[in-house]
Amino acid sequence: MALRREKMKNRNLHLGSQFLNIIMFGLFLAVMITNVAQAAGLPDPGMKIDPARTALVVTDPQNDFLSPDGVAWGVVGKNVVANNTVANIENLFKTAKNIGMPVFVSPHYYFPHDHRWQMEGSLERLMHNIGMFDRKDALSLDGFEGSGADWLTQYKPYIADGKTVVTSPHKVYGPETNDLVLQLRKAGIDKIILAGMSANLCTESHMRELMEQGFEVLVVSDATAAAQLPGLDGYAAALTNFRMIANHVGSTSETITAINTAYQN
Amino acid sequence: MALRREKMKNRNLHLGSQFLNIIMFGLFLAVMITNVAQAAGLPDPGMKIDPARTALVVTDPQNDFLSPDGVAWGVVGKNVVANNTVANIENLFKTAKNIGMPVFVSPHYYFPHDHRWQMEGSLERLMHNIGMFDRKDALSLDGFEGSGADWLTQYKPYIADGKTVVTSPHKVYGPETNDLVLQLRKAGIDKIILAGMSANLCTESHMRELMEQGFEVLVVSDATAAAQLPGLDGYAAALTNFRMIANHVGSTSETITAINTAYQN
Amino acid sequence: MALRREKMKNRNLHLGSQFLNIIMFGLFLAVMITNVAQAAGLPDPGMKIDPARTALVVTDPQNDFLSPDGVAWGVVGKNVVANNTVANIENLFKTAKNIGMPVFVSPHYYFPHDHRWQMEGSLERLMHNIGMFDRKDALSLDGFEGSGADWLTQYKPYIADGKTVVTSPHKVYGPETNDLVLQLRKAGIDKIILAGMSANLCTESHMRELMEQGFEVLVVSDATAAAQLPGLDGYAAALTNFRMIANHVGSTSETITAINTAYQN
Amino acid sequence: MALRREKMKNRNLHLGSQFLNIIMFGLFLAVMITNVAQAAGLPDPGMKIDPARTALVVTDPQNDFLSPDGVAWGVVGKNVVANNTVANIENLFKTAKNIGMPVFVSPHYYFPHDHRWQMEGSLERLMHNIGMFDRKDALSLDGFEGSGADWLTQYKPYIADGKTVVTSPHKVYGPETNDLVLQLRKAGIDKIILAGMSANLCTESHMRELMEQGFEVLVVSDATAAAQLPGLDGYAAALTNFRMIANHVGSTSETITAINTAYQN
Repeated sequence: MALRREKMKNRNLHLGSQFLNIIMFGLFLAVMITNVAQAAGLPDPGMKIDPARTALVVTDPQNDFLSPDGVAWGVVGKNVVANNTVANIENLFKTAKNIGMPVFVSPHYYFPHDHRWQMEGSLERLMHNIGMFDRKDALSLDGFEGSGADWLTQYKPYIADGKTVVTSPHKVYGPETNDLVLQLRKAGIDKIILAGMSANLCTESHMRELMEQGFEVLVVSDATAAAQLPGLDGYAAALTNFRMIANHVGSTSETITAINTAYQN
Repeated sequence: MALRREKMKNRNLHLGSQFLNIIMFGLFLAVMITNVAQAAGLPDPGMKIDPARTALVVTDPQNDFLSPDGVAWGVVGKNVVANNTVANIENLFKTAKNIGMPVFVSPHYYFPHDHRWQMEGSLERLMHNIGMFDRKDALSLDGFEGSGADWLTQYKPYIADGKTVVTSPHKVYGPETNDLVLQLRKAGIDKIILAGMSANLCTESHMRELMEQGFEVLVVSDATAAAQLPGLDGYAAALTNFRMIANHVGSTSETITAINTAYQN
Repeated sequence: MALRREKMKNRNLHLGSQFLNIIMFGLFLAVMITNVAQAAGLPDPGMKIDPARTALVVTDPQNDFLSPDGVAWGVVGKNVVANNTVANIENLFKTAKNIGMPVFVSPHYYFPHDHRWQMEGSLERLMHNIGMFDRKDALSLDGFEGSGADWLTQYKPYIADGKTVVTSPHKVYGPETNDLVLQLRKAGIDKIILAGMSANLCTESHMRELMEQGFEVLVVSDATAAAQLPGLDGYAAALTNFRMIANHVGSTSETITAINTAYQN
Repeated sequence: MALRREKMKNRNLHLGSQFLNIIMFGLFLAVMITNVAQAAGLPDPGMKIDPARTALVVTDPQNDFLSPDGVAWGVVGKNVVANNTVANIENLFKTAKNIGMPVFVSPHYYFPHDHRWQMEGSLERLMHNIGMFDRKDALSLDGFEGSGADWLTQYKPYIADGKTVVTSPHKVYGPETNDLVLQLRKAGIDKIILAGMSANLCTESHMRELMEQGFEVLVVSDATAAAQLPGLDGYAAALTNFRMIANHVGSTSETITAINTAYQN
């Protein structure tokens, strides 16, 4: 814990000195998102929000991605700050809860047996190496509270309100290994507003699988963020694929306006 | 048909004038691929090729992507030429067939009933609008020979040799809607060498779903290509996601060397 | 072909001498179905037919099951005759087409590569041994017309009307390996009226998978039939599992009445 | 709890008076199982146990099915006693643990949100009505210890040994909604020895889905049991379908002998 706090302090200093960079990057990003949204001649089928059949789905709203104390903050933190991801996800939660829109959360947990897998892709191995999303056991909450696997504190009122459906954990990146699709169908949902972490991994794999299952998907482009490494910009990759694959891509503010409009009718 | 030939001629002129651009882009690309392969500190789990358990899987080796006459050539052609995709896929086919490695092809077809879908993502709509991969009926081959849905002519000897397993068509981007996973399992395969079109759509969705199903996947980074539109570089997106998700990413020549080595032991 | 016709003649004689048995068995069956429908205290959730969201799904309406010339007739024929399966399926097709209800057919085909599977369950092996549902190639219709894999002749007008959605073939028993779920979702369907062959294999596996996918399923208990072997009554097994698992089980005549009523409102 | 104990006492009296019936039924059953195993001419492909690639999979080894205090005991208890299911499952656990065979458990849990499903099949509704497998929340163990959702006490040493892989819960009957298939693949398993509850529901749906996924499955016919209601014998249905679908069906004692033999070689 002390080590973690130390790391966090160093990061904060580092972040301080990067403040200007982030502002500049944010400006660049705003332009890029706009460009992507108008991308050359691609159809934009749109998604009409029907209150009876639409839900908010949030992937991995957990400390390891969204807290400066989380183990992945070093690679995703800059993009989380630039996109204003933490507040954007919260605004979506708040809007959905105020208006009565169903909310589903698909978490990511790893148990000790997952660390014994005989084969792992690149970031599966990395996540296991850094202890990301680790829990002691599916039937133990020992050490869970406040850990990297726990919800970001400010989201707990929305997730633990007795109405949000928290699915079983997904184990690679997509919902193929959990009950998200079934829970959505059992609630009569076939239109998804998708947000959460991280953009090109779990969020995108959820988008792709939900499309394969015949859902309509609207991805909220700034209520997500991704790892950005030299030569490997996960967020840019995700924006490209969201635009080419989803029914629609919109910002948090556009999406909230669309939700409010749909519920007024 | 006349219209198609006309369009093709115009494209060829256009391509001629773009020749220098492509060379320059190719050089840039070679550097980029190298950088991606060495990406900052990401694990590279690798994939040991075990001849008893490894197969070559090729997505969409069809005219609409790979022939200058295909309906998608306008957006993917530049990248197909830059990557030398057509020859690279053929070299993989040739290597596998010479050495006795199992080969599976996952095609993409659309039938008239697919054009009546009530909901479509962006590129699903585009593909339907331009008649991509269209066939008259699952039980009709009328007009199929030489159409955009047919195999690229030079691949036919490899695909129609009586040994290659051609699965049912996938219908969105991934193998969730066909029998690829079952066919691989029934052949005792759990390691995949993945190539084909297009990089960030069907190839990437196949990679993601095969990983969710517990296969090991090696993606051949230059035996694929993608649509490149202003602000939307499908190939760059795919390279990022391949590197972060797959067990290994390698070029065609590295992969062929690895196959040959594995079979000698 | 001559051999087949010879076998068919022998079967007809045999069937003639069994006529009385079948009548008796039919009476017994009518009683049994009624009993099952009232089964001790089990909930019967029912399925409200909403014309906008309901489809008829038919599995394997093919010669090998339903024609006295089919390779499986020896084991399923008695039950097909007793249930009046052929006419019941046709009445469902006719009702759906008259009234404009969407119809989906999930066929069963085997290609030469399926015969090279390294592992097979009991009836998978049997089907391969007897050449059931065999076709030359996915891209060949050579020898298909009138074969065991072809539709029962009297169903062709309903299946080939340009409106029925014929999915890719399933390969074991369920729709996990084809595009049925996607096609239903893309048509806005979430309620299924299920009929076809054979009751405890493909029909039941379709019911189970459709339930796992969150569809509501009404199984038509006498528009199906199964293999009945000494000590192994596939139809009795199916009736038990339909009753315990589906949303509702009804006879063809009840179901047709329910469809007509739903469409009048 | 007092209510539960009262119900249990009544059941025990009832069971006492049924003792003779059970013995008789057991004798009948032994004959039936033998007959099924020799079923007329069906192929029996068998499953060669390869220690490197084989695992024991147990569905629902939980109080609600296997304890006289469980909510489903009234309908499954007679069959559990007749088959000697509790001891047979324990003998499989013990054999696997002694010899080092990997063990996977697929549990069944329902959370409050599952009770809000808008559509349910017959036994889904029943399970919800009787509070079967109920837990307070995925992130709460409040009231879990010793509840109907908890493991049968005598199995806890095998399940909680730090080696058994406990998957996420399945939500209908099959593993489509959990991570069982992935966990098996990540452990290099492609051959399954299947046992657990209940025979024609979760056990059979696991068998069917594992077959669709290309696993080989050996079902242990007396390490399972099912609900038996007037006119609806779930166990008879399961035996029929196991025999027709699986690679092999064997008794506990045969299976233990086969495991021991395989590990000696």
